[in-house]
Amino acid sequence: MGGASRQGKYDAGMERNAANFVPLSPLPFLARAASVFPDRPAILHAGGTTSYRAFRDRAVRLASALDGNGIGRGDTVAALLPNGPAMLEAHFGVPMARAVLNAINTRLDAATIGFILDHGEARAILVDREFIPLLRAALGHCAARPLIIEVDDPPCPETARGETLGGIAYEALLAGGDPGWAWLRPEDEWDAIALNYTSGTTGRPKGVVYHHRGAHLLALGNVTAGDIARHPVYLWTLPMFHCNGWCFPWTITALAGTHVCLRHVRGPEMWRLIAAHGVTHLCGAPIVMATLLDVPVAERPRLENTPTFLTAAAPPPEAVLAAMAEAGFRVCHVYGLTEVYGPAVVNEWNEAWDALPAEDRARKMARQGVRYQALEGLTVADPETLLPMPADGETIGEVLMRGNVVMKGYLKDEAATEAAFAGGWFHTGDLGVMHPDSYIQLKDRAKDIIISGGENISSIEVEDALYRHASVAVAAVVAMPDERWGESPCAFVELKPGAGATEDELIAFVRGAIAHYKAPRRVVFTTVPRTSTGKVQKHVLRRLARGDDAPPGDER
Amino acid sequence: MGGASRQGKYDAGMERNAANFVPLSPLPFLARAASVFPDRPAILHAGGTTSYRAFRDRAVRLASALDGNGIGRGDTVAALLPNGPAMLEAHFGVPMARAVLNAINTRLDAATIGFILDHGEARAILVDREFIPLLRAALGHCAARPLIIEVDDPPCPETARGETLGGIAYEALLAGGDPGWAWLRPEDEWDAIALNYTSGTTGRPKGVVYHHRGAHLLALGNVTAGDIARHPVYLWTLPMFHCNGWCFPWTITALAGTHVCLRHVRGPEMWRLIAAHGVTHLCGAPIVMATLLDVPVAERPRLENTPTFLTAAAPPPEAVLAAMAEAGFRVCHVYGLTEVYGPAVVNEWNEAWDALPAEDRARKMARQGVRYQALEGLTVADPETLLPMPADGETIGEVLMRGNVVMKGYLKDEAATEAAFAGGWFHTGDLGVMHPDSYIQLKDRAKDIIISGGENISSIEVEDALYRHASVAVAAVVAMPDERWGESPCAFVELKPGAGATEDELIAFVRGAIAHYKAPRRVVFTTVPRTSTGKVQKHVLRRLARGDDAPPGDER
Repeated sequence: MGGASRQGKYDAGMERNAANFVPLSPLPFLARAASVFPDRPAILHAGGTTSYRAFRDRAVRLASALDGNGIGRGDTVAALLPNGPAMLEAHFGVPMARAVLNAINTRLDAATIGFILDHGEARAILVDREFIPLLRAALGHCAARPLIIEVDDPPCPETARGETLGGIAYEALLAGGDPGWAWLRPEDEWDAIALNYTSGTTGRPKGVVYHHRGAHLLALGNVTAGDIARHPVYLWTLPMFHCNGWCFPWTITALAGTHVCLRHVRGPEMWRLIAAHGVTHLCGAPIVMATLLDVPVAERPRLENTPTFLTAAAPPPEAVLAAMAEAGFRVCHVYGLTEVYGPAVVNEWNEAWDALPAEDRARKMARQGVRYQALEGLTVADPETLLPMPADGETIGEVLMRGNVVMKGYLKDEAATEAAFAGGWFHTGDLGVMHPDSYIQLKDRAKDIIISGGENISSIEVEDALYRHASVAVAAVVAMPDERWGESPCAFVELKPGAGATEDELIAFVRGAIAHYKAPRRVVFTTVPRTSTGKVQKHVLRRLARGDDAPPGDER
Repeated sequence: MGGASRQGKYDAGMERNAANFVPLSPLPFLARAASVFPDRPAILHAGGTTSYRAFRDRAVRLASALDGNGIGRGDTVAALLPNGPAMLEAHFGVPMARAVLNAINTRLDAATIGFILDHGEARAILVDREFIPLLRAALGHCAARPLIIEVDDPPCPETARGETLGGIAYEALLAGGDPGWAWLRPEDEWDAIALNYTSGTTGRPKGVVYHHRGAHLLALGNVTAGDIARHPVYLWTLPMFHCNGWCFPWTITALAGTHVCLRHVRGPEMWRLIAAHGVTHLCGAPIVMATLLDVPVAERPRLENTPTFLTAAAPPPEAVLAAMAEAGFRVCHVYGLTEVYGPAVVNEWNEAWDALPAEDRARKMARQGVRYQALEGLTVADPETLLPMPADGETIGEVLMRGNVVMKGYLKDEAATEAAFAGGWFHTGDLGVMHPDSYIQLKDRAKDIIISGGENISSIEVEDALYRHASVAVAAVVAMPDERWGESPCAFVELKPGAGATEDELIAFVRGAIAHYKAPRRVVFTTVPRTSTGKVQKHVLRRLARGDDAPPGDER
């Protein structure tokens, strides 16, 4: 068994020292890439190329300029930026000054941004000219008065540029910085590196804090999860304001790969860049796959390689998987939350499944999967007792996570942090099952479950069934009050252009596909409302299903 | 700048807890592989296959049996084993009981092994039947009385089996173990996981202690350094008693790859296994490449893929590189020491070099290279002042390293530990230069430098020049006393079979290749003496060069 004293001879005279202990951080990834591959293309943007030498020099200039402005350890530097070079530079330059990067979702409303600037105590903000009107409005909602650094991105159309707020021009700031400055490692690997606000469908957004240790480990965890070889070519379809782009600014740099920037996610431009630069990897929600697939086959360039598309947020439907394969992509399904640095669970593909019929393959692919190497614990359990549910693929419990890629906590919210970590596990709030082979599958958000006649109905399962109908483009299912059953499923459906289907037809179709009691009792044909980040606004649908038409604004 | 207080809001209420902090360790790699890929082949040996499920079960059985025998945290479990399944199982099973694995070089003499068993305080030892006579002799040299666990490996020839020492049979021990036992994570990632004695050309061997954190980080560092995709097939040509096989027992398991065991490194068997199992990676000193290349082309099977050979210990000569390429291998040159878990420096290949003439490519490949992602600092400096030498490719300094893959220290030797870490850097004792592109190149061991007329002569440079002569098979150069110059180079040369060359001819050849003063003043044609691990015994040669023929035993 061995007590603590037994480690004795293996501890005596072997304390940590400067030679054998260095705080883990993703920052040395850039220093190494710039030293070993100074001339390799680090960033492609708007027809220009930034080498790794220049990438490092610009990041260090940014760090030294922030330091020169009195910004340092524990200070927040916000960013309202598209997926361009400045955002990548900020992922290194801000923490190289020991400051904390707060990349803000540019699709949020001004009031929410104002709340974030106040709550995060932003000392400075990097803002693209396009988002200056948004920032101006946000500043009207808050007390924060950050140093404003204005980024003038050449491809930003003249008509989209807001009038200057009188801040420092980003290029002028860099020009005043020192590329030879001795950038700062974190004092402790537990120091904060980034602050990311949850999009939260209800209540105030919470500030999720990442530390250097976790960012290092998840960035390298992406390498094995995505099976990424060195020098990848990565297309920036996933916004870097979502979980720091799932840590890919650090992952791609660790492998001395090429970041291909993309100001706006548009199908033809994606295809052009993928073909022109031999893109090997890209990430995004299913809507990004749909955008790719919307481009007619005749208008797609020929691809020389098979890019890997890492997707999260919703299981990729069978039809989309088939279309992606036909379009020349490999799809990898991952799952995570802001609180775990982006993806921490991966649908590890077993080659034995290649031989399955398409429908069964899609079912395997729909499962969220198993833990990243960097996530030490993943279970489906009773959230109160923490006892694991049977691994039968049927018993629903809460998905719990534990490990070094779980957030440091919520900023200035000890109660929420404690609740999230109750019992030594991070409570995701997602409901799912554990299959006998240890793969987890989400069944619902805790609040999205439909309880009908004492039976739990997963709205995802009903939605999946609807998606199998040839006419359905979008399906969203919520609970509606039901006198007899308590609740019953109500479906909101968008049909494909030119397609037709009746309510009765769809209900009968679902009854033919899954258990009868799970079929919707009502189908509403409508445009399904989404948040700025593309999430279906289920709270809006629930209100509609209840017959309550009050405006949804106050529930945000 | 930001003082320590400034991290304030990013620390308050965000301490480490069980949900967001787990000690880093390579042990969960096996648990994950067995859970996600239970049926994949983990170990191929003697015609049989061990699945990942069985690999985990056997490792956990071993851990529980050790625990049942009172062996736990801080206890040493030694191993005298070939590269077979028991050795792989020990790499997980021993630390799963919180004990420390001490894999001993089976080529050592009995007295040295006795010293190691005493110094390491071995509580148990796993011994292959072939090494029982060696162990019996070693026990005659020491006071240690470890629990003896005898491994009966089927392919061990009957004639090679020593008579039992009356220990427990390994399979009986496992049979009494519990595959469902809750194996133990380390209490702290700084806890020891392994003990490896340096082969040391002089003095007593030193016990290098590895911790779980470093083993985790180097194991995954191998993935990016070797650019290894998932499910590699790895041939065990590198002994696991060298730096735990450079941490590859953990690397390959992390990627759910296949370990192909090899009891003895023999050319035809290597070729057979490489072709039969589609080996993707193997490691070893240049002598292993020579063994591969010794097999006549007509007797080699056809390879379907291009295996990567990671080599260390000496720069691969141009002719060997060409022959390996022709034989269908990619060569990757790495460099390290026991104190840094095996390799920590890699000759990162720049595709631009592919276009160079063969000779220049070989020169690039001969350089040791740049730091692993997992090694945070690598420099060539003055060992006293720690000031870096100019990166001019010429000024010789000591190679210094710093980072999380530097050992915890030397067991029970605080003085040596302190000296090794003087000034916050690990002093390798190797002399080298830093090239302008930040690649390091070794020039000599500190003690192997030849100082002639006040000029430093690198014995490696002289050896390299000799190797370029078509008749030279092996060359080793040491200092010999010289009345006029203080010291001068003396070369010991083995000629290729059937080749001829005279002393004058070789001296003239070297004078034509490098600076005149560096040419050997004497060439001795002889068999070059090597240690059990294949290192040239320069101390023996130095004695010969001095005309001192005393036996070398006392200098070990």
